[in-house]
Amino acid sequence: MPRVAGLPLPVGRAKPEAIEQSDALMTLSPAQLDAALAYADAHVDASLERLRDLIAIRSVSTDPAYAEECRRAADWLVTDLASEGFSASARPTPGHPVVVARAPQVAGPTVLFYAHYDVQPVDPIALWNTDPFTLTPVRQPDGETHLVARGASDDKGQLLTFVEACRALRATTGALPLNITLCLEGEEESGSTNLAGFLAAAKAELAADIALVCDTDMQDPATPSITTMLRGLVGEEIEITAADMDLHSGMFGNAARNPNQVLAEIIASLRNPDGSVAIAGFYDDVAELDAVTRDSWSKLGFDGDAYLREVGLSVPAGEAERSVLEQITSRPTCEINGMIGGYTGEGFKTVIPAKASAKISFRLVADMDPEKVRAAFRAHVRARLPADCDVRFTAHGGSRAISVPTDGIHLQRARDALTAEWGKEAVLQGSGGSIPVAGDFKRILGLDTLLIGYALSDDRIHSPNEKYNLTSFRKGIRSWIRILAALAG
Amino acid sequence: MPRVAGLPLPVGRAKPEAIEQSDALMTLSPAQLDAALAYADAHVDASLERLRDLIAIRSVSTDPAYAEECRRAADWLVTDLASEGFSASARPTPGHPVVVARAPQVAGPTVLFYAHYDVQPVDPIALWNTDPFTLTPVRQPDGETHLVARGASDDKGQLLTFVEACRALRATTGALPLNITLCLEGEEESGSTNLAGFLAAAKAELAADIALVCDTDMQDPATPSITTMLRGLVGEEIEITAADMDLHSGMFGNAARNPNQVLAEIIASLRNPDGSVAIAGFYDDVAELDAVTRDSWSKLGFDGDAYLREVGLSVPAGEAERSVLEQITSRPTCEINGMIGGYTGEGFKTVIPAKASAKISFRLVADMDPEKVRAAFRAHVRARLPADCDVRFTAHGGSRAISVPTDGIHLQRARDALTAEWGKEAVLQGSGGSIPVAGDFKRILGLDTLLIGYALSDDRIHSPNEKYNLTSFRKGIRSWIRILAALAG
Repeated sequence: MPRVAGLPLPVGRAKPEAIEQSDALMTLSPAQLDAALAYADAHVDASLERLRDLIAIRSVSTDPAYAEECRRAADWLVTDLASEGFSASARPTPGHPVVVARAPQVAGPTVLFYAHYDVQPVDPIALWNTDPFTLTPVRQPDGETHLVARGASDDKGQLLTFVEACRALRATTGALPLNITLCLEGEEESGSTNLAGFLAAAKAELAADIALVCDTDMQDPATPSITTMLRGLVGEEIEITAADMDLHSGMFGNAARNPNQVLAEIIASLRNPDGSVAIAGFYDDVAELDAVTRDSWSKLGFDGDAYLREVGLSVPAGEAERSVLEQITSRPTCEINGMIGGYTGEGFKTVIPAKASAKISFRLVADMDPEKVRAAFRAHVRARLPADCDVRFTAHGGSRAISVPTDGIHLQRARDALTAEWGKEAVLQGSGGSIPVAGDFKRILGLDTLLIGYALSDDRIHSPNEKYNLTSFRKGIRSWIRILAALAG
Repeated sequence: MPRVAGLPLPVGRAKPEAIEQSDALMTLSPAQLDAALAYADAHVDASLERLRDLIAIRSVSTDPAYAEECRRAADWLVTDLASEGFSASARPTPGHPVVVARAPQVAGPTVLFYAHYDVQPVDPIALWNTDPFTLTPVRQPDGETHLVARGASDDKGQLLTFVEACRALRATTGALPLNITLCLEGEEESGSTNLAGFLAAAKAELAADIALVCDTDMQDPATPSITTMLRGLVGEEIEITAADMDLHSGMFGNAARNPNQVLAEIIASLRNPDGSVAIAGFYDDVAELDAVTRDSWSKLGFDGDAYLREVGLSVPAGEAERSVLEQITSRPTCEINGMIGGYTGEGFKTVIPAKASAKISFRLVADMDPEKVRAAFRAHVRARLPADCDVRFTAHGGSRAISVPTDGIHLQRARDALTAEWGKEAVLQGSGGSIPVAGDFKRILGLDTLLIGYALSDDRIHSPNEKYNLTSFRKGIRSWIRILAALAG
């Protein structure tokens, strides 16, 4: 099974001796905890039925054609959470709604839980083995069951691990052991355009002691993981135009500027022959790894060749002097996620198109400023625009890289809870991906975030045949029960 | 009205004094000719109704989804021609059928008429002002009527000018003045894949004295034109692949080879900074214009700046030292007609695609060998393919440039007939476009071809809002009546 999603990397450990003993603060008795865990196990089929219902709603946020489906997914969550005693509603935004739900007030701290109910598009649909919107359990030779569907892992399955944990706690203890606010987004896969504005407007009711995000993966199927380092992301769309209309290449070929050619030349100019990004100043704010991290990485045993081999590749394409591990985690990227121009259907059409466009994303590290990167990219493009061409830029989100403090009490309690559930010490990891919401929570709500998820690197998120392991779902629910109990002190 | 299709250029004139007087050979009396012309004028509304019917059949040959529509268009023609006394049938090919129709045998020479009943795709559909498959007359301020529809000009409208001319002749004289075989293709817009094979197989029944093709345009709305010089065409599709599947750019960015980037770099490498094509040996067989042609062109008064300005451009993009006229007519081209890779829908998807592809066409001049150009292009691409990438090539047709002899008796008779109809001397012209069938007729059937059409450079063929002037249609019918009468000698 090739790995397509997530490479968790230990980046350091908090010192356990510096941390207060978390058991002393738990408000649930061991018997109550056991009862909740047993309930979750006994009712996992019902939990899966709910996941099936949520998966069936085609909440593809990036495509306006599915706006009503996104609305339906939000309503489904409101209904389900309301049935569990939450005060829940779908809050309008200029885009898709945000679901906010609050449990009845109890003594103790407050956690703000975030996940997203929207999903990636399913194309290329032909490569799916089963209907993307029908949760399909597929038994594996090793005894695992893959829950195959768009959103099974990213992020509906992960979202429901938390909701089902709340259900089990409430069913067995009559209440939740601490205050819980849920904030479930519907635009994570389309740039979270309206999330920051919503958080600012709803700041008071989202007040909490710590944020929990379930949208990350584990280092491997046996190792529970908390993600503490993420790259930032800048999305840009460019459209190059030349003539007023599509032209016949027999009549205008050579003489008319061809936007396909222009776009290709601009894209080609973004990378140097050594694999580095050629935009002026791109690496100005990129720090070298500190000695401790570099040393810790050298001990990881990460096999870059094997990592590439699993997806059919053999030669790293990035900066020649950097390891695969650096390229995918600690170095910034510039990738062409999509490009289109002219006639792309079956057969042939001898057209010189009036326009060509590309979607380009940058992953940022350390102190890189998204808007500075965006400006440098746009200047790079404008400087290479030939006569008769115009360019239109569209911004698709921008977020800084984030680093979660690794020495907090909540992190240590969550780590202990994960260690107890999985029988193996939870690790702190970095990821090459981007989860901008953690930065928003810090900046807007003043909250630190614990990024805890149960996805695996072979879950094929964003690709055909996305899956979530049944073990991830089942033990994910159990993990949240333990974490909520641990945080309730 | 911007010009998008066709730039007719005089390239020389046959000397009239060297030509036999054609009137002496006509078998139709002037009264009969007048009667046929009058019939055509009187029944033009019925002719337009038939054009409307044919236009309504969505015979887009390049898209397999429309195969049945192509079949229907062929059947429509068979039915219509049979009703006019032709022995007509739709002949199967591995692709879309070829319609062959023969009039009852009479004394005199035989002409083979060619046109095509298939049309270009209609995308981008949003830019059409009216339904592409509904023939819509739009009255212009200058009194002209535009017949707007896909295929109105290219080539259903042109095709029917000939059929309607036959109808008028038969209605008024009871028979056609010479032997006529029609060969109506359904794959011209998709590379004429099966035409050469069909011509070879049907060689005996297609035997004729001269071929007539109606798929070209006039130098301007007042000047009848015979096209004697056309560029050749090579179509190539390339698909670049890297990883086994789409990847998440957060997890594999930098390290995984991105086919979008690779394709862009290959496309960028096809042109030199001076606008010339960078493929090794590309210009080896390109002759300089001879002194006579160069001199004749210098007197044309062709305004390259104005030609570009009409489509919103100002700076020629081709070889820096060549005029616009040379770039679009006597120099070969390499144009990117389409390219696509990764996510191109609404919004954003941070994917590194498994593949990216492009459709690339070359216009050939003089002695360029299509297969030599194709091989040089493929070698150019292969030499630039980085590690971990594969490329798949798909050929989309290949034809040499053609030059029709300008000193034949048939050409002179047709020229005189056109001159009589339009009241202005018919010109011989070159065109930057490609009509491979003329080369096939010469090579396979041993026939010279007269390329005569009534389209105009602003007909927007291959583009939204394609149109055919009502004058082109009406006087096109009348022109064929005169030409057939003239050739009947």
